[in-house]
Amino acid sequence: MRILGIDPGLNATGYGVVELDGSEVRHVASGTINIPSARPLPTRLNLLFEALREVFDQYHPDEVAVENTFLAKNVAVALKLGQAKGIALLVAEQGKLPVAEYTPTEIKTAVTGYGAAAKEQVQYMVGRLLRLDVEATTHHATDALATAICHLHTALPRHATTSMAATRRIAHA
Amino acid sequence: MRILGIDPGLNATGYGVVELDGSEVRHVASGTINIPSARPLPTRLNLLFEALREVFDQYHPDEVAVENTFLAKNVAVALKLGQAKGIALLVAEQGKLPVAEYTPTEIKTAVTGYGAAAKEQVQYMVGRLLRLDVEATTHHATDALATAICHLHTALPRHATTSMAATRRIAHA
Repeated sequence: MRILGIDPGLNATGYGVVELDGSEVRHVASGTINIPSARPLPTRLNLLFEALREVFDQYHPDEVAVENTFLAKNVAVALKLGQAKGIALLVAEQGKLPVAEYTPTEIKTAVTGYGAAAKEQVQYMVGRLLRLDVEATTHHATDALATAICHLHTALPRHATTSMAATRRIAHA
Repeated sequence: MRILGIDPGLNATGYGVVELDGSEVRHVASGTINIPSARPLPTRLNLLFEALREVFDQYHPDEVAVENTFLAKNVAVALKLGQAKGIALLVAEQGKLPVAEYTPTEIKTAVTGYGAAAKEQVQYMVGRLLRLDVEATTHHATDALATAICHLHTALPRHATTSMAATRRIAHA
């Protein structure tokens, strides 16, 4: 079972692919799609569409999880975020893949056990769980990986609970 | 010169095609794309994508104008609007068509000469200018037609000024 997590943004969209291997969650790939902000908006949206399609084609996820940041600072930011998120959902739908959305609180709870966890705490846990050097990974990519882990935890509790709970104990130790 | 105007919305997206014929603005087609709100969001976005593609394929516009309602009531509404607008811009970009965005104030000013005009006033002027029975047209479709007219007025002042100015005089008579 391979999950693609997406942290959508108009300037930078993070993606993270994880795989459930027995009861272990394994890091497959992650990265950031940077969209030049000087380009016209329609071009930027299409660049994001094409780049996400490449990620789908390269990693063949079984399911997709998208971070739903509805707590945008203001309406202008929300409009921009909505555009990027819409593209992510569209690409998943066109790939005929199941797609779920998770709020930041759900993602933080799934990864750290605490819905108001700091960004650094999420990063730390993602690194711990996936044996990944998060210092070498962008915030967008770790957020995307956290979203994918959240989906495993939420949608596949049978498989994922053991390793997630174990990891959470480490975090709180 | 054929312009496709789009009034994007997640439940209902209006479209309107107008053509500049000499100094006359002519109504080619208009309508509303209704998206069943019970369907999952990714499906709705893809239904909108496919429906807009059909409109593009059917009417072959030369340029596209999209209403940019950044004055959404709140962040949740803005996120939804953003998703729909993102799809509209993406379809235009993938069709390699020039696309411009206009605020409601710009559209109202172009069509009625008054940026704070009431919805009914915009409808009336669209009907007048295009010799169209606006009673038989949805608000979304007339908004889309107004957006297309705004683009003609803004992007092609050489061609459009005469008839637009004449029509505006009628409105204020």
